Amino acid sequence: MRMYDLILKKREGGCLTESEINYIVKGYTQGSIPDYQMSAFLMAVYFKGLSDEETFALTKAMTDSGEKLDLSCIPGVKADKHSTGGVGDKTTLVLAPMIASLGINMAKMSGRGLGNTGGTIDKLESFPGFNTSLTNEQFIENIKHIGIAVNGPTLSLAPADKKIYALRDVTATVENVSLIASSIMSKKLAAGADIIVLDVKSGSGAFMKNEHDALQLAHEMVKIGKASNKQTIAVISDMNQPLGYNIGNALEVVEAIETLKGKGPADLHNLCIALGTQILEAAGKASDAAQAKDMLESSLTNGTAYSKFKEFIKTQGGDISNIDNPMKLVNASYIVPVISNSEGYVESIECEQIGRASMILGAGRKDKDSPVDLSAGIVLHKKTGDFVNKNEEIATIYFNKKEVKNDVINIILNSYKIVDKKCEKPELIKQIIK
Amino acid sequence: MRMYDLILKKREGGCLTESEINYIVKGYTQGSIPDYQMSAFLMAVYFKGLSDEETFALTKAMTDSGEKLDLSCIPGVKADKHSTGGVGDKTTLVLAPMIASLGINMAKMSGRGLGNTGGTIDKLESFPGFNTSLTNEQFIENIKHIGIAVNGPTLSLAPADKKIYALRDVTATVENVSLIASSIMSKKLAAGADIIVLDVKSGSGAFMKNEHDALQLAHEMVKIGKASNKQTIAVISDMNQPLGYNIGNALEVVEAIETLKGKGPADLHNLCIALGTQILEAAGKASDAAQAKDMLESSLTNGTAYSKFKEFIKTQGGDISNIDNPMKLVNASYIVPVISNSEGYVESIECEQIGRASMILGAGRKDKDSPVDLSAGIVLHKKTGDFVNKNEEIATIYFNKKEVKNDVINIILNSYKIVDKKCEKPELIKQIIK
Repeated sequence: MRMYDLILKKREGGCLTESEINYIVKGYTQGSIPDYQMSAFLMAVYFKGLSDEETFALTKAMTDSGEKLDLSCIPGVKADKHSTGGVGDKTTLVLAPMIASLGINMAKMSGRGLGNTGGTIDKLESFPGFNTSLTNEQFIENIKHIGIAVNGPTLSLAPADKKIYALRDVTATVENVSLIASSIMSKKLAAGADIIVLDVKSGSGAFMKNEHDALQLAHEMVKIGKASNKQTIAVISDMNQPLGYNIGNALEVVEAIETLKGKGPADLHNLCIALGTQILEAAGKASDAAQAKDMLESSLTNGTAYSKFKEFIKTQGGDISNIDNPMKLVNASYIVPVISNSEGYVESIECEQIGRASMILGAGRKDKDSPVDLSAGIVLHKKTGDFVNKNEEIATIYFNKKEVKNDVINIILNSYKIVDKKCEKPELIKQIIK
Repeated sequence: MRMYDLILKKREGGCLTESEINYIVKGYTQGSIPDYQMSAFLMAVYFKGLSDEETFALTKAMTDSGEKLDLSCIPGVKADKHSTGGVGDKTTLVLAPMIASLGINMAKMSGRGLGNTGGTIDKLESFPGFNTSLTNEQFIENIKHIGIAVNGPTLSLAPADKKIYALRDVTATVENVSLIASSIMSKKLAAGADIIVLDVKSGSGAFMKNEHDALQLAHEMVKIGKASNKQTIAVISDMNQPLGYNIGNALEVVEAIETLKGKGPADLHNLCIALGTQILEAAGKASDAAQAKDMLESSLTNGTAYSKFKEFIKTQGGDISNIDNPMKLVNASYIVPVISNSEGYVESIECEQIGRASMILGAGRKDKDSPVDLSAGIVLHKKTGDFVNKNEEIATIYFNKKEVKNDVINIILNSYKIVDKKCEKPELIKQIIK
C-alpha cells in the first residue's frame, strides 16, 4: 500500500477500505507517512468527504491508536458529556454534579480551550490545588467513591487524533463534518463511558454557525456512537448569545455555583435539565422526561447537587474555603462598568465578538502555550430581548491588564444590536438527535 | 500575511493576489512555509483551480525564484522547444540542427526523463564525451558560434518550480492544468529564448491522454507565454502510438540521424517540419508556411541540417567517429525478434505499454537516481494501419538484462491490437495554437 495511491483515490472521490484507513492512521501516527502527504489527503477529504463506513473506520483507528480506559470495574452506568464549545459554556460544572448526585457515574474527560475562555479544566483550577491530571487509577477510584471525576487531557488517549488535529489546525482542513465528528468521538470512545451526551452548539458564538451544520455534525456523531454500541444522544442548543451571563473562568464557576443552588440563569438551568434528562432516560433512571426533570430539579432545590459539587472539588484537591462565597475566587485588579449609549431592545448580541472581548481581557488563550487569567472576564447584564436604558450598565468587565480596557468596551458595545421594536428571546433547545 | 489564510482563501474558491502568490512561492522556496501547508494548498488548487492572473503570477514568481539566462548578447532570434513527452520522441535531435542550419539560434534546455526512456540529454550521451553540463558562458558561446546548444537541467533556473514539483509528485497534486503549464513555462521563461514552441502530445502514450486536456494545456501555456511577451506556439501532436519506430536512447539517435539525412519515418519527419514551420514563421524567416516547409525540406536534402548536427555534437565534446554508422552506438548483448502470433491490420498500439516495455529493458528510469542503459530499447516494424503476417517480425528488442526478455515480448505482443478490417493511420498534427 502506498500513501500516494490513497491520496489519489480520495482525490478522485473513491471510498477507502478499513485497512486503507488503518494504514493511513497508523502510518501517520508512527511517522512513516509524512505531514505533507497527510495534509494533502486531508484537503482531498475536505472536498470529497468520507462515507459513513470510512468515518467509522477512521474513528475506530484513532480510538485504537492509544490507551483505552476500561471503566468496567466501576459498578453502575458511566456517563460522559461533550460540548462543541461556546461562549459562557459552564454546563459541565453544573450538569456533572447533578447527575452524580442522582446516582449515575460521571466520568468526564475535559480539555483546555483555545479561544474566548479556558476549558472546563481551566475553570476548575479557579479552586487552588484542584488536580486536573489524575492518573487513570485515581480517576477510576474517585468515580467509585463519589460518582464523579473530571480529568484533563492525557496524551495517551487517541494520540492519532491529537496529531491529525494539530495538522488540520494549520492546514485549513478542520471544517469537515466527518473529520470533526471522528475527532470528538475517538476521544469519547477511548474514555470508556456507556452513555455519551453531546451538546452541539449552533450560532454565531459556536463553531457551527448555523443549525443545518450543527444538525449534520450531531447526526454524524450519533451514528458513530451507535456503530460503536454506545448510547449516544446529541442536543442542539442555541449559541447566538452567550450561555448565562458570566464569561471567564472563575466568573463562570461563580455562575455555575449559583445554578447548582437553583438560582442560575434560565438558559443555563434549562440546558442542564435538558442534557440531564437525556442521561437519566438513557441510564434507565427515569421512565420519562417528566420524571427525569423532577429528579433533576429536586437535586438543585434539595441541595444534593451542590453538596456533590463540593465533595467533587475537595476530592480532586481543590480548596473549598471560598466556595460559599465564590466571588472571592475572582481577583481582578480592575472592575469596570460598560455603559450603554443607546436605548431600546436587544435584538442580538454578536456572540463571537463577546468571546473575543473575553480573550482580550485575558480569559482565553491565543495559542496553546498562552497562560490564562482565571479572574478576567465579562458579566453581561442584558441579553437578547431585554430592554436597555441609555446610560444603564449593560455589562461589567473584570481584568488585570489595564491597557485593554477601551478596546474591550468598544467591542462589547458594538456587539449589542439595540432596536426600538420589542424582540423575542431565542429558543434554547433546537433539536434532540438520538 | 499567513499561509493558513491563503490556504483557506483558495479552499473557498477565492482568487489570490500577485503579492499573495509571491509570498507563497518565496516562503516555500526559502523554507518559512512548511511542506505540509504547501501540499494542502496545492490540493486546494487541484480542486478550485487558478485564474489566468493567478497562473501568470505563479509562473512569474517561479521564473524569478532563481537565475534567468540573458541571451541578449547573442545576435539574432533565439528559439527554444519543449515537448510534454511521449514514447519514441526524438524530435529535438532532428529539429534543433534543422533550425540552426537555417540561421535561427536554438537555445535548448533539456531534462533527463523519468519513464520509458531517458530525456534528450540522456540520448545525446550516446555520443561518448558529450557534455550536458555547460556553464552559462559555454552555452551562450556555443550558440554564438554555431547557432545551437543543448544543455541539461541546472539547479539555478526556477528552483521554486523544482521544489514545488517534487512535492506535487508525492502528494497527487500534479494533474492540474495551471500547475502543469506554470511549471513548464517558468523554466522556459527563465531560459531566455524569444520564441517558444511547445509540442503538446496527446494520446495513450502521453501525459495528456485526450485531445481536450492537451488543448487546455496548450492554451494555458500559450497564454502564459504571451503574457510574458514571448512568441509562443503550441502544436498538438498524436501520441496514441510511438513516434517513429525506434524507442530507446542510442536507438533514437540512430533514427534521428536517418531523419536528418531525409530518410526518416514519415511521422517524425512531418512533426519536425510542422514545428520548424512555426519557428521559421515566428522568426520572420519565412513569409508563409509553404516557404518554411521548402526551406526545412531543403535543409535535409542538401545535407546542411545533418552537418549542423555533427558540428553540434562535436562542439559539445561528443565523439563523432561513429556518427555515419550510428548502429555502432548501440551495444546491446541481446537482440531478439518479437514474432507476431496473429495476422491482420494493426488497429492500435497501447503506447504506454510499449513505453513500459522500454523501461523494463533498461532504457528508462524507475526513479530519479536509476541509471539508464543507453543501448537498450525497441525497434518497431509495424505501426497503426500496417498489415502483419503471422510469424512476421513485429518488433526487435535490444537489451543487456537477459531475465526481462519474456516479460517484454509479452507486453509488446499484447500492446498490438490486430484486426481483420483495414485501419486508418492516425492523424499526426491535431491542432496548432498561437
